[in-house]
Amino acid sequence: MSKNEKNVESITNRDVDFARWYTDVVKKAELVDYSSVRGCVILRPYGYAIWENIQRSLDDKLKETGHENVYLPMFIPESLLEKEKDHVEGFAPEVAWVTHGGAEKLAERLCVRPTSETLFCEHYANVIQSHRDLPKLYNQWCSVVRWEKTTRPFLRTVEFLWQEGHTAHATAEEAVDETLRILDIYASLMEDMMAIPVIKGQKTEKEKFAGAQATYTMEALMHDGKSLQAGTTHYFGDGFAKAFGIQFSDKNNQLTHVHQSSWGVSTRMIGGIIMAHGDDNGLVMPPRIAPIQVMIIPIAQHKEGVLDKAREIMAGLKKNVRIKLDDSDKSPGWKFSEHEMKGIPIRLEIGPKDIESNQAVLARRDTGEKKAVSLDNIETELMSLLEDIHKNMYQRALAHREATTSYAKNMEEFEKALEEKPGFIKAMWCGERACEEAIKDRTTATSRCIPFEQESFSDTCVCCEKPAKHMVYWGKAY
Amino acid sequence: MSKNEKNVESITNRDVDFARWYTDVVKKAELVDYSSVRGCVILRPYGYAIWENIQRSLDDKLKETGHENVYLPMFIPESLLEKEKDHVEGFAPEVAWVTHGGAEKLAERLCVRPTSETLFCEHYANVIQSHRDLPKLYNQWCSVVRWEKTTRPFLRTVEFLWQEGHTAHATAEEAVDETLRILDIYASLMEDMMAIPVIKGQKTEKEKFAGAQATYTMEALMHDGKSLQAGTTHYFGDGFAKAFGIQFSDKNNQLTHVHQSSWGVSTRMIGGIIMAHGDDNGLVMPPRIAPIQVMIIPIAQHKEGVLDKAREIMAGLKKNVRIKLDDSDKSPGWKFSEHEMKGIPIRLEIGPKDIESNQAVLARRDTGEKKAVSLDNIETELMSLLEDIHKNMYQRALAHREATTSYAKNMEEFEKALEEKPGFIKAMWCGERACEEAIKDRTTATSRCIPFEQESFSDTCVCCEKPAKHMVYWGKAY
Repeated sequence: MSKNEKNVESITNRDVDFARWYTDVVKKAELVDYSSVRGCVILRPYGYAIWENIQRSLDDKLKETGHENVYLPMFIPESLLEKEKDHVEGFAPEVAWVTHGGAEKLAERLCVRPTSETLFCEHYANVIQSHRDLPKLYNQWCSVVRWEKTTRPFLRTVEFLWQEGHTAHATAEEAVDETLRILDIYASLMEDMMAIPVIKGQKTEKEKFAGAQATYTMEALMHDGKSLQAGTTHYFGDGFAKAFGIQFSDKNNQLTHVHQSSWGVSTRMIGGIIMAHGDDNGLVMPPRIAPIQVMIIPIAQHKEGVLDKAREIMAGLKKNVRIKLDDSDKSPGWKFSEHEMKGIPIRLEIGPKDIESNQAVLARRDTGEKKAVSLDNIETELMSLLEDIHKNMYQRALAHREATTSYAKNMEEFEKALEEKPGFIKAMWCGERACEEAIKDRTTATSRCIPFEQESFSDTCVCCEKPAKHMVYWGKAY
Repeated sequence: MSKNEKNVESITNRDVDFARWYTDVVKKAELVDYSSVRGCVILRPYGYAIWENIQRSLDDKLKETGHENVYLPMFIPESLLEKEKDHVEGFAPEVAWVTHGGAEKLAERLCVRPTSETLFCEHYANVIQSHRDLPKLYNQWCSVVRWEKTTRPFLRTVEFLWQEGHTAHATAEEAVDETLRILDIYASLMEDMMAIPVIKGQKTEKEKFAGAQATYTMEALMHDGKSLQAGTTHYFGDGFAKAFGIQFSDKNNQLTHVHQSSWGVSTRMIGGIIMAHGDDNGLVMPPRIAPIQVMIIPIAQHKEGVLDKAREIMAGLKKNVRIKLDDSDKSPGWKFSEHEMKGIPIRLEIGPKDIESNQAVLARRDTGEKKAVSLDNIETELMSLLEDIHKNMYQRALAHREATTSYAKNMEEFEKALEEKPGFIKAMWCGERACEEAIKDRTTATSRCIPFEQESFSDTCVCCEKPAKHMVYWGKAY
């Protein structure tokens, strides 16, 4: 049962080729399979189960905060998509067009939704009349399609699963509050469920969503030093409301346009889990979102009493722990590697000697540490170990981010940091798009966000040396 | 607060015009809204919440029985759809075709999935190698598109939400067993959750699914005497496996084709709830699936203590009952009508006099009966009333079906029954497609199923008078 018995095909070393390592992990951990549909992947049971846990956790939170789920059509008529000018310019180049129904050519093309602002606006114009109808806090779980040229599982695919919230409010203030409240819910989902620390802030004008007045984001640092935009929320003002005629009579009987927000997170978060936590043995799942938290591996399972004991342990725990027993006829070593590849937080080994001593051996995936614990308090031990793994994974990701975040006062420092210590770069910025573009041209790094937590360590823009307006996080991004 | 204060716009009388009554109910109960996308509807919060409850209930059951959820792409390349001959003939005429991605014309057209047998088969060919990989019991929750000409909310729409299960087994027997096991799960969902009795049986050759060897169905009788096909399961034999090359090495190391099944239920079930239970005041929701089981309506809510008491009651019950409080500034009469329209099983009235007597008044939606109950055992009273409502709704639907089911020994009896007492007709059949078609041409009734519970009350076919093979349920259908 030593690690030498490792039978699972090995994967690319993470630090040698991060991109290939990533692709190996998604495939070998059985998260996805490829299909004959270009740019679309199949979410296999293990990959989909992660999404279900993310979904359940977020959906509960959204319902608690008064949001309601709806379902709108997957098609958008071309004329409807064109109603808001900035929005259509942003999305039209990357949509899939349906032109025929059966043998018949359609009078008007339909696009497969890349996002559903236009449909929600059309519906809101129908159902909102009075201030009593507000706020409308709607959410939808669905898939969307964007005709991307280069794709990678979870990070960028032609079709992907997400939720999209669309809300309408009586005042600008309420709509902005909603945008920030949701950003906090998203950040908590990343940090408290997935053990990934995030930076919250606002996108620059250049990076904001097509049609939005302001876009807020949470950015997470991956192991290779690149940033992942893990979720965004948008404040629209009354721009869409004017384009779609969404008006309500306020308390003084005045017709007024609503103020709106939209927000979304997607299966991209699963890419974040892989890239923030994974190692050379594969995936490392954060316990609170892990489909399987504990895998029981019987040792010498052919010996009398071993499988019975394993089943007894499972039966006693399954109410409070997501636990499985691997009683297949593979060798323990093979099973070890397989479940390591899938990142299962705790392996519980139980063999004849353990049974004699009324104990089990717990091996944690994040550190590889093993310890024997008494079967009398196995549940307490597992619960506290799962909590510990969560905290350790979070702290490790945070320490990595801090160790790879640099300050740059000028472009030489900026470039040197990017080269020597890939990660976030904090630098002051004048607020001009020209500087943002110059930085991107020179370094390929983009502005990730203007963080809510500002610092001031220089008076001048890192690029043009004019007076600085904001401190900005920069980085290469997925 | 009398019913005369009824302020909700009234709906068409159910027995005067069933189709218009149906459309009124879906709209006024706020289940759906129409959109500018032809044939596609918007599921509003109340309508979607019903679907979520159906989904949760079925999903739990499928997981208990070893099924796993996955997600496959929404697009199917034309060449893939064409791999199984009968299947493509059945579906190609009614699919939506994507021909362009962004500005670019695609080399091969993609259809938006009408059902996903072909994609599952392609995936299974990739991931099934050995008998150890079997069975594969996969399920997917998604939307599908069928380019229907005439549509009605829930019953037939261009896009609709459903689940589709696709399984692969080592033997024909296992695949058939799966098909029947799922049919039982579906029937229990209809009967035990939605209070709608169903007839289980097999479809005739003429009515079976494109590409299947056998299709099983459950048929429910609606209030107007028409039958609703509420869910089907299909046994494919190894036909798809041969077309897609899905083989495994069995225990003797022989390469063998798998045997497959597929099965699905959809938002159509919500149409079934409306048409089996609804009345002239609107929807009547079966309690076990109802998004809101109890609505508290305070009487004289401006009086001191009334709203506090209402909130206290809600707080005490919300752990075990799906309960809401309507504290809007509408009149109680208005609220009564609104929540009747939405079919909320129990209305709980609480006013100053009730508080004095430490009681509340419970009004049930199914019968209209009211009774006062002590606040000391309100939870027990509600629980038992909800159970009672479920049973009563089921019995009422069953009694209606029995009262409108006729026996026909010849075509005169058949036509007379259809005319005088719209409902199911039981009649013996020779097994020939020609008779099935003749019956349809003459009466517009179709064979609903060859029920598992056979009866024999005549030796000859109702149509041709040749020897009878089966007893068949016939009826007009949605």
